[in-house]
Amino acid sequence: MKALTFDGKIALQHDWPAPERPPGEALLRVRLAGICDTDLQLARGYMGFRGVLGHEFVGEVVACDTRAWLGKRVVADINASCGTCPECRLRDGHHCEARTVLGIVGRGGALAEELVVPERCLVEVPLSVSDEHAVFAEPLAAALHVGRSFSVAELKGGGRVAVLGDGKLGLLTVMALAAMGVSPILVGRHNTKLALVAASCLETRLESSLDEQPLGSCDVVIECTGSAAGLTRAISLVRPRGTLVLKTTVAGATSVDLSPVVVNEISVVGSRCGVMRDAVDALAQGLDPSALIAARYPLAEAERAFAHAATRGSLKVLVDPLAGYSGNGQSTVMPPNSSSTPQ
Amino acid sequence: MKALTFDGKIALQHDWPAPERPPGEALLRVRLAGICDTDLQLARGYMGFRGVLGHEFVGEVVACDTRAWLGKRVVADINASCGTCPECRLRDGHHCEARTVLGIVGRGGALAEELVVPERCLVEVPLSVSDEHAVFAEPLAAALHVGRSFSVAELKGGGRVAVLGDGKLGLLTVMALAAMGVSPILVGRHNTKLALVAASCLETRLESSLDEQPLGSCDVVIECTGSAAGLTRAISLVRPRGTLVLKTTVAGATSVDLSPVVVNEISVVGSRCGVMRDAVDALAQGLDPSALIAARYPLAEAERAFAHAATRGSLKVLVDPLAGYSGNGQSTVMPPNSSSTPQ
Repeated sequence: MKALTFDGKIALQHDWPAPERPPGEALLRVRLAGICDTDLQLARGYMGFRGVLGHEFVGEVVACDTRAWLGKRVVADINASCGTCPECRLRDGHHCEARTVLGIVGRGGALAEELVVPERCLVEVPLSVSDEHAVFAEPLAAALHVGRSFSVAELKGGGRVAVLGDGKLGLLTVMALAAMGVSPILVGRHNTKLALVAASCLETRLESSLDEQPLGSCDVVIECTGSAAGLTRAISLVRPRGTLVLKTTVAGATSVDLSPVVVNEISVVGSRCGVMRDAVDALAQGLDPSALIAARYPLAEAERAFAHAATRGSLKVLVDPLAGYSGNGQSTVMPPNSSSTPQ
Repeated sequence: MKALTFDGKIALQHDWPAPERPPGEALLRVRLAGICDTDLQLARGYMGFRGVLGHEFVGEVVACDTRAWLGKRVVADINASCGTCPECRLRDGHHCEARTVLGIVGRGGALAEELVVPERCLVEVPLSVSDEHAVFAEPLAAALHVGRSFSVAELKGGGRVAVLGDGKLGLLTVMALAAMGVSPILVGRHNTKLALVAASCLETRLESSLDEQPLGSCDVVIECTGSAAGLTRAISLVRPRGTLVLKTTVAGATSVDLSPVVVNEISVVGSRCGVMRDAVDALAQGLDPSALIAARYPLAEAERAFAHAATRGSLKVLVDPLAGYSGNGQSTVMPPNSSSTPQ
């Protein structure tokens, strides 16, 4: 099959072996996949990953043990956990030490024609949710997961929330908060990106304006910049006893002054993968992430798609294994909002 | 009056003006005071403080507006907040921006014969609690305050808690946890200090043993070392989705890898001042901190007391304004446990 792999370098494979389906797992045909910043990091050596990249997808079940799944359109929790350890028994298995993670740890990913995932990871996608929306389920689940780090009910009663960073995750987090009934202040560096979700925000602000016009302190700040400067800024914006949610990692040792965390008794909460069903439900209820789509490439052009995704400030690049290779090197680049309007 | 002041340097004053009592405040005669590491930091320029040092004390009300307080033996919340701002109305005023803080911010402290504090900060000390125990109320309140950063009930059901650091705050935190029904693992560098609270611990460990004999992951880790190395160690000991409580600040920018906080979805919670009544109640119920007493000096020897407190690894140094000056330069140095046994 065709697949985009990493083995020291990114390469489109034309004859990659199709994955074998172990008992309890489902073989899926990929309908549409997305490229995530984590994929870009894996291609720089993060986690020492080797194999088929990709963990954002929507697919169709073509073989499985449980007949009811056959033919279903699905997304999947990317964490394939053991199901028996204390992390799995007491919590959701997202931190199971024995887990494999789709396209990230010990398991081939979705930038391919086919993949296998455990049946227990599958979540059906209702007909009302298009492939172009469903392919956002994984990052949207992560964005919705911020709502488990603070009291959404308290915020709806008049709290101030700021999202720092207008990249893909920051924008999705704004959409997720809006779906929860919370209007955040979005702080970013790009007027064009701020505009994409302005309708969901209480206020959008260019970061460069903050020093002259301070934002005031916030009950909750969600850090989506992944930079040391963003982290320092985020700490400064949280009110005493407020919450700072870290959605992005700053790789390696960072020089940061944590004394305000103690002095102001701030809670700093790391937040990663979310619950896929929450994301599918939000999409079914009308959350529309398609304003984030920058371009869509056939799988045969996945190397170009990957290069596009790696350009600074790129929004979401999709890869379509069902599309025929155009043969002329042209990608089907879509302008934002071509298929629908942002909510 | 006699008072220990800081004005660029530490000095015992023999004719310092007695504090004037504003309406709503009480004039107290200090019965016993303690020297805290924060006092040592103030004497190095922290907060730009000038005036009478000291915020750990037990005293007696000698003048006030509310007659019922007259003659009462008391401790006091060190945060004198405005009572009207949102921080005061919605929370406990410990983060009121207009507050003064006893011996720390804009208000003279307790290393003196007399001090004034707002009546609303006072907490009566029952007869069953000695001065030597009551003088620990302020740091004990801070130690008990860790119990607001995680679910104590869940921990009692079999959770693992580690306290890092066997200094005064680490040892008091162990005592506070024991009072809550939680037995922590105490990690420190001094067998003599570990031994002081061994009976309250599930286990005591020398930090040097951790690399060879790992501790295993903990539901809650309480960082009381105040060092960057301690912070890194603490992060590594918290289980996924566990809680790290920061009790001590690492001053200035620190180089630390925070990516495990995100990857493991850890909650890092800053924790400072606690509720004085909680501390008095715990002392009344038998919590005995006197094993932490290193020495007791008359106020006339407060400079020597301060120097003693500043020696590396010193336990609690007390200052007694009621004791007559011995005149021969001798302090009343007490061995640990001279007056009682540790719990």
